Amino acid sequence: MNPSGARAVYPFVAIVGQEALKKSLILNVIDPSLSGVLIRGEKGTAKSTAVRALAALLPEIDVVEGCPFQSDPHDRRAMAPDARARFDAGERLPVQRRKARVVELPISATEDRVIGTLDLEHALKEGAKRIEPGLLATANRGILYVDEVNLLDDHVVDVLLDSAAMGVNTIEREGISFTHPARFTLVGTMNPEEGELRPQLLDRFGLCVHVEGLSSPEDRVEVVKRRAAFERDADAFAAQWREQTETLGADIAAAMARHPMVEAEDSILLDIAKRSLAMGVDGHRADIVMLKTAKALAAWHGRDTVVAADVDEAATLALPHRMRRRPFEDVVR
Amino acid sequence: MNPSGARAVYPFVAIVGQEALKKSLILNVIDPSLSGVLIRGEKGTAKSTAVRALAALLPEIDVVEGCPFQSDPHDRRAMAPDARARFDAGERLPVQRRKARVVELPISATEDRVIGTLDLEHALKEGAKRIEPGLLATANRGILYVDEVNLLDDHVVDVLLDSAAMGVNTIEREGISFTHPARFTLVGTMNPEEGELRPQLLDRFGLCVHVEGLSSPEDRVEVVKRRAAFERDADAFAAQWREQTETLGADIAAAMARHPMVEAEDSILLDIAKRSLAMGVDGHRADIVMLKTAKALAAWHGRDTVVAADVDEAATLALPHRMRRRPFEDVVR
Amino acid sequence: MNPSGARAVYPFVAIVGQEALKKSLILNVIDPSLSGVLIRGEKGTAKSTAVRALAALLPEIDVVEGCPFQSDPHDRRAMAPDARARFDAGERLPVQRRKARVVELPISATEDRVIGTLDLEHALKEGAKRIEPGLLATANRGILYVDEVNLLDDHVVDVLLDSAAMGVNTIEREGISFTHPARFTLVGTMNPEEGELRPQLLDRFGLCVHVEGLSSPEDRVEVVKRRAAFERDADAFAAQWREQTETLGADIAAAMARHPMVEAEDSILLDIAKRSLAMGVDGHRADIVMLKTAKALAAWHGRDTVVAADVDEAATLALPHRMRRRPFEDVVR
Amino acid sequence: MNPSGARAVYPFVAIVGQEALKKSLILNVIDPSLSGVLIRGEKGTAKSTAVRALAALLPEIDVVEGCPFQSDPHDRRAMAPDARARFDAGERLPVQRRKARVVELPISATEDRVIGTLDLEHALKEGAKRIEPGLLATANRGILYVDEVNLLDDHVVDVLLDSAAMGVNTIEREGISFTHPARFTLVGTMNPEEGELRPQLLDRFGLCVHVEGLSSPEDRVEVVKRRAAFERDADAFAAQWREQTETLGADIAAAMARHPMVEAEDSILLDIAKRSLAMGVDGHRADIVMLKTAKALAAWHGRDTVVAADVDEAATLALPHRMRRRPFEDVVR
Amino acid sequence: MNPSGARAVYPFVAIVGQEALKKSLILNVIDPSLSGVLIRGEKGTAKSTAVRALAALLPEIDVVEGCPFQSDPHDRRAMAPDARARFDAGERLPVQRRKARVVELPISATEDRVIGTLDLEHALKEGAKRIEPGLLATANRGILYVDEVNLLDDHVVDVLLDSAAMGVNTIEREGISFTHPARFTLVGTMNPEEGELRPQLLDRFGLCVHVEGLSSPEDRVEVVKRRAAFERDADAFAAQWREQTETLGADIAAAMARHPMVEAEDSILLDIAKRSLAMGVDGHRADIVMLKTAKALAAWHGRDTVVAADVDEAATLALPHRMRRRPFEDVVR
Amino acid sequence: MNPSGARAVYPFVAIVGQEALKKSLILNVIDPSLSGVLIRGEKGTAKSTAVRALAALLPEIDVVEGCPFQSDPHDRRAMAPDARARFDAGERLPVQRRKARVVELPISATEDRVIGTLDLEHALKEGAKRIEPGLLATANRGILYVDEVNLLDDHVVDVLLDSAAMGVNTIEREGISFTHPARFTLVGTMNPEEGELRPQLLDRFGLCVHVEGLSSPEDRVEVVKRRAAFERDADAFAAQWREQTETLGADIAAAMARHPMVEAEDSILLDIAKRSLAMGVDGHRADIVMLKTAKALAAWHGRDTVVAADVDEAATLALPHRMRRRPFEDVVR
Repeated sequence: MNPSGARAVYPFVAIVGQEALKKSLILNVIDPSLSGVLIRGEKGTAKSTAVRALAALLPEIDVVEGCPFQSDPHDRRAMAPDARARFDAGERLPVQRRKARVVELPISATEDRVIGTLDLEHALKEGAKRIEPGLLATANRGILYVDEVNLLDDHVVDVLLDSAAMGVNTIEREGISFTHPARFTLVGTMNPEEGELRPQLLDRFGLCVHVEGLSSPEDRVEVVKRRAAFERDADAFAAQWREQTETLGADIAAAMARHPMVEAEDSILLDIAKRSLAMGVDGHRADIVMLKTAKALAAWHGRDTVVAADVDEAATLALPHRMRRRPFEDVVR
Repeated sequence: MNPSGARAVYPFVAIVGQEALKKSLILNVIDPSLSGVLIRGEKGTAKSTAVRALAALLPEIDVVEGCPFQSDPHDRRAMAPDARARFDAGERLPVQRRKARVVELPISATEDRVIGTLDLEHALKEGAKRIEPGLLATANRGILYVDEVNLLDDHVVDVLLDSAAMGVNTIEREGISFTHPARFTLVGTMNPEEGELRPQLLDRFGLCVHVEGLSSPEDRVEVVKRRAAFERDADAFAAQWREQTETLGADIAAAMARHPMVEAEDSILLDIAKRSLAMGVDGHRADIVMLKTAKALAAWHGRDTVVAADVDEAATLALPHRMRRRPFEDVVR
Repeated sequence: MNPSGARAVYPFVAIVGQEALKKSLILNVIDPSLSGVLIRGEKGTAKSTAVRALAALLPEIDVVEGCPFQSDPHDRRAMAPDARARFDAGERLPVQRRKARVVELPISATEDRVIGTLDLEHALKEGAKRIEPGLLATANRGILYVDEVNLLDDHVVDVLLDSAAMGVNTIEREGISFTHPARFTLVGTMNPEEGELRPQLLDRFGLCVHVEGLSSPEDRVEVVKRRAAFERDADAFAAQWREQTETLGADIAAAMARHPMVEAEDSILLDIAKRSLAMGVDGHRADIVMLKTAKALAAWHGRDTVVAADVDEAATLALPHRMRRRPFEDVVR
Repeated sequence: MNPSGARAVYPFVAIVGQEALKKSLILNVIDPSLSGVLIRGEKGTAKSTAVRALAALLPEIDVVEGCPFQSDPHDRRAMAPDARARFDAGERLPVQRRKARVVELPISATEDRVIGTLDLEHALKEGAKRIEPGLLATANRGILYVDEVNLLDDHVVDVLLDSAAMGVNTIEREGISFTHPARFTLVGTMNPEEGELRPQLLDRFGLCVHVEGLSSPEDRVEVVKRRAAFERDADAFAAQWREQTETLGADIAAAMARHPMVEAEDSILLDIAKRSLAMGVDGHRADIVMLKTAKALAAWHGRDTVVAADVDEAATLALPHRMRRRPFEDVVR
Repeated sequence: MNPSGARAVYPFVAIVGQEALKKSLILNVIDPSLSGVLIRGEKGTAKSTAVRALAALLPEIDVVEGCPFQSDPHDRRAMAPDARARFDAGERLPVQRRKARVVELPISATEDRVIGTLDLEHALKEGAKRIEPGLLATANRGILYVDEVNLLDDHVVDVLLDSAAMGVNTIEREGISFTHPARFTLVGTMNPEEGELRPQLLDRFGLCVHVEGLSSPEDRVEVVKRRAAFERDADAFAAQWREQTETLGADIAAAMARHPMVEAEDSILLDIAKRSLAMGVDGHRADIVMLKTAKALAAWHGRDTVVAADVDEAATLALPHRMRRRPFEDVVR
Repeated sequence: MNPSGARAVYPFVAIVGQEALKKSLILNVIDPSLSGVLIRGEKGTAKSTAVRALAALLPEIDVVEGCPFQSDPHDRRAMAPDARARFDAGERLPVQRRKARVVELPISATEDRVIGTLDLEHALKEGAKRIEPGLLATANRGILYVDEVNLLDDHVVDVLLDSAAMGVNTIEREGISFTHPARFTLVGTMNPEEGELRPQLLDRFGLCVHVEGLSSPEDRVEVVKRRAAFERDADAFAAQWREQTETLGADIAAAMARHPMVEAEDSILLDIAKRSLAMGVDGHRADIVMLKTAKALAAWHGRDTVVAADVDEAATLALPHRMRRRPFEDVVR
């Protein structure tokens, strides 16, 4: 969105309070298969600030240099057609290491902007497809952030759901089509006063947190002070928080390293299943997400084994937006 | 959808429970004239997983090599115009043997994508029609899978209904038209919370099953364990289930071979007619589907004769979504 | 719709029961000025099967060879502009004798497809109009069949009504227009559960029949048996019913020959007028249709004079959908 | 609509009953400034038949030969731009004498068809405007007939109202415009069951009649007999009614000749004004139309002076559809 | 609308009664900053006749010769870009003196017709903008008349409101834009039975009058007689009223000359303010309009000072459509 | 909107009353990060007049000469791509000093007009993007004024919200995109009778004032007198108020110079936080805006320290439109 001369970003660690919000984002960095976070809450509660700030904490990934689809040079299945063709032809693909990205999807974005476009004249004349990649290409292997996700145009929602379900995005024009990998962590914010989310899209979010304004006057003063300091001199403010930012980055990296080794005993799995049944959630996605969240929490806490407290915490993040029988608001707020 | 570097597919035999769902899909493989399955049920209940997994169990078919419409080299009536013209000119059509396909129709698909397009400029200039085949061409003689079929755009539904009724698809542009065979088994999933299906489309599905999350904690743990194993290493997981997959494939092949020989006595037919009358279904399609389902079941159970139990089971799959007088939900759920 | 490699058609004579449906179609073949049939009824009751099967029973007509508008070589008023110009220039038009056609109008058909299109660039450049004829051209002098006629797009309904009222179809583009004869027998099917018909369109149908599933279990068994036999081997099945088909064809031809000679006495006409008044139908179209239907019935029964029983039967086919004061459903079902 | 090979037209004089309908049409021929007739009534009551038959009774008019806008060669104000330019240049315009026309406006007609189009490329390239005239050009100085006028598209209604109010039609495209005279007698039919007319359009019709089916069985028999005779041999039928047709034509011509001389005394005008006030009609148009109608009636009855009976009859034709305070239906039916 | 061969116009002075309507139009000629009139009332009450007739009474204005935007040669601020550029370059602009115009805006007018269009290809190729002026250009410095203003398309209303608020019209296409002065007196008619006006547009009209049919039979007779005479021979009728027309024209010219000298004492202003407060109108526009109306009335009555009676009369024209608390109809009718 | 020959502007200082309105606009000039003002109120209450008049009081800014995006020559982050490229290439950018602008956004403005457009053909042919900047480019670093903001088209609102949230505007066409800075102070007026504002847009306005007509007759007389004087001779009127205008300009400049030095003690911050909690506003934006407003007020009053009275006044401007629990109107009016 903001290619080079971008404005300054407020540091993640300088956000006052909002622990559930920060935790849920960190867990998704530790385990990207957690399928994102839906952040519900009032206007003006650091929702967007937190997501944008997350960019500084994302891990580095290897991409095929110059590939607008972020093809993975080490996994043939995660390559776009061009990279795959070169790979199959025996070429040694050039590797670039860089941070994963947070890509913003504006509410006013057109389908063309999201999906990308295909230059049909070129395709017909020269037999080769020429593609203008869309936001789903840029977001591949990163975070796709939608502010006010409940106000998205229905057609764009359909596109997001198709991509999220199939892991690919297809650009087509008059019957000619082009398919590339499109796997991303979906992070959305919404203010429930302005309309609820389509249930189908709701279910795509692994976790859900509710945020509201801080209730302690002292905390509020701290928010205002830090904001004023940031607006006065963003660079000086960032410098002041650099050390804490680096510590958090190191903690996350350690948790990511430990994460594959975390184990959960069968009693833990049984506990998870019973909770889902007791809460009356639909299907099995809740169970799977709870287990993953608990494992990511264990890794974050420096453990190799999931404990009951991890499941407790995971349940608060993974269950509420999946319950069926009671009206949603009663549960979440 | 997923041409070459496709992601791994979860094995059909590794799905825990959901017997009616699996059975209904297998019956459609045994007798493709059964006209598909509608899978109703909660989010997160292996619906899509089962349909995608089915691809591995489909039989091989002969197609005219290089024909994008899957023309049948042995049946002039099932050829697209180009193949038929070559056939009529006495050419010996090149035969390719390959598996029938599962083609996914994304909800965001445009009519052009579904129907295909015709390059009018080319047609006018050179007197020959140039066609970009659509999903209905790819799906000919295979399975057309629509996830969330109740959310399909009305125009696309009209196109599906026309194709299903006439067995052909017509691509047109400004009065010039092109017609090719389009016979497919329609498999759809839907979550009834998000809206019911147009009755006309409902009737096109031969069978209907209702699925929900498993109610035994132990089964749920098994679901989560297998899913985790699959996500950890999809290839190893597939290897672990290969033997069972092959056994099931062989069983299906045997049933397909036996199926043409299965007979039903008149008393069975009378039983079927009486059930339809008693249940108050519209017209005669239910009778026809029940008989076919019962025969496919007999073949599956290794018998050459339909028995009363086959009719019992067929009735549970073919009748509920065809009853008229009571509200639909009371019957199905 | 189904140019050459068409699928097999179920024989008209093999349809079990549904006498009113079959009779109403035959009467329209005997007297095409009867203005068609509306077939109301449940799903799955042989409605489409009967109409498609009717094609085999249609009479042969003379057309100007190669004329896509089915110009009549013997009647200047029933010629399209090109044929008329050649006729006026003294050319002896080449005659082709072939069966009248059943043309299907898909619900998803665009206006362009129905009306036809005009190649404007060509028209402007070379001063001559180039036309791509639509379905109304193909249907001229035949049967236009609309399955689920109550789901037709409003714009297409307007076009049908204009054509039916004026007997011509006008293709226009940016003010340039082309007019050709478009006289057809309109046959529509509908399931009243999915919405009623616009009254104006309802009145265009000369006759109306209501069909439902058979209520005798033995008849239902017969339906299923014949369908299974047809699906097993369509050609063998057709052969089995060939003799009955030919007998019916000969009976229809005899009735068509006798029809112009059938007379009705004034007492019959008075009887018809009194019935219309008693039933409270709008206008005089009902009287005219009843008289025509009674004459066609007399011809069908081998008589040269209309008898009271003919009027009785005609009334059941021509009056119910024209009554005004009571709600429609009470009368028809 | 039906340029040359038109079908036969039922003779006006052979219509059974429906005196008010026939009278109102004749009065509009005698005085074209009466602004047309709205014919309300049931389906199948000779409404369209009468309007189409009227064509044979229309007077001859002088037009500029070859002018698609029916320019009047004797009145500079009633010329289209091209004819006016030639007239102003001193050219003696070639005169063609022919009958005024009945032009049908199909409900499915596009705005382009009604208004006409302008070939912009030509206009820009060669500095001259090239026009494809629309139905409003063809209808100038004739009758514009709209069957089912209450079903007209709103945009087309706007165009008719603008033309009727301003007496001209403007063809425009991207800011370039062309204006030609468009004065026509508007005749519309409608079935009130299918929706009422927009009040603004209602007021444009000078007269309004209500028609329904005949209530005498003998009359109904006569309708059916004549229709049957007409369908059997239209030319013979026309010959049979030729004398009566010619007599009517002569009577109309005599009334047209007498009409300019008809006078109304002040007591008649006062009577008219009092009726309007008593009936509570809006504005003064009713008074003006009543006076004109009464004068046309006097001319029709061979008198040079309006008598009270003429006003009585005029009131029944001009007042009912203009009353304000009571619901419309109560008055008209 | 009606360039040269226009039809005859009914003389303003020959309109029977309707004094408020005529007065409000005359006041707007005397002081064009009064912002127009909204004429509410029944069908057929001379509304359109009066506005069209007004054209003959409009003053002459100086315009830059050949300028389609009616640029004022004496006021740089009221020039379109081209005229201004020539003026700034020191050119002496050619002056044409002609009457201000009444321009009609048809309800079916497109936005392009109203705003004008810009020939983009030309603009891009030759660096110069080529404009096709719209109705807002033609109406600059004149009267823009909208019959049935309450039926205007919302988009066109937006355009009128923007122009009225900013005094300019902007023609744009793909980001290229062209701005010219567009100041006009807006006169609209409406029949409240067909829907009320958007409040925002209502407020744009300086004055508002309500008209209805005359209630005296003698007056009605006079209306009919004059209309008949006008229709019989428009030129003779105009001649008959020429003297009165010229007298009125002279009276208006005299009032316009006196108008700038009219003064109002502070007690008058205080009276106006108190009336607005008492009537509960929004904002201050009512005060300003009342003062202007009272001054124009004083000028009309040949006085140099506003008197209380002027304020009384002004209040009846300027206040009713601006009151807030009571429903509009109760006040106006 | 009004490039050169603009009409005269009413002086800000000559507006009678409406102190809150004038104060809120001045505060936004002193601290542009206050995020604008929403002006709610009746028709005709000087809302637009005040905003347009503000232009004369805006400070001067440095822009890159000739840059249509108002790039800041001193801040690389606030440059459009072209200026940034030149800056990065070491070019010394030419500086132009001029007043910040008030840009009006008409309600009828298209998205293209607001966003700007990209000449795709040029982009494809010559490899360079050619941009037609939109209103968001013109408004960068100035004031964007929307009259009747509650009537804005939803798509345009989305665009404004995206720009306001991200500080940039993206022009795209078929996948090619161009991003430039778009930071502006949003000033909107609305009449709540014509519909409320979307909550999301409401929150974007830093301050909110409610205006209504003056209730003192003497004040109203003064309004009318000044308006009349202005209309009589705008230049003379401006001259009369020049001194007061210059004094106000100097006061604002002084406040702007003092503003960066204003401090607020912690007790003030705590007071602010407690007020927000007590009033039940959402999030923390209210706290931040209140602090900024209080500081701007202190600077305006010539102080270097915020006092309690500043917070009192700030609360009346920043809180009412942010309260959640009670219906909005009760609080504001």
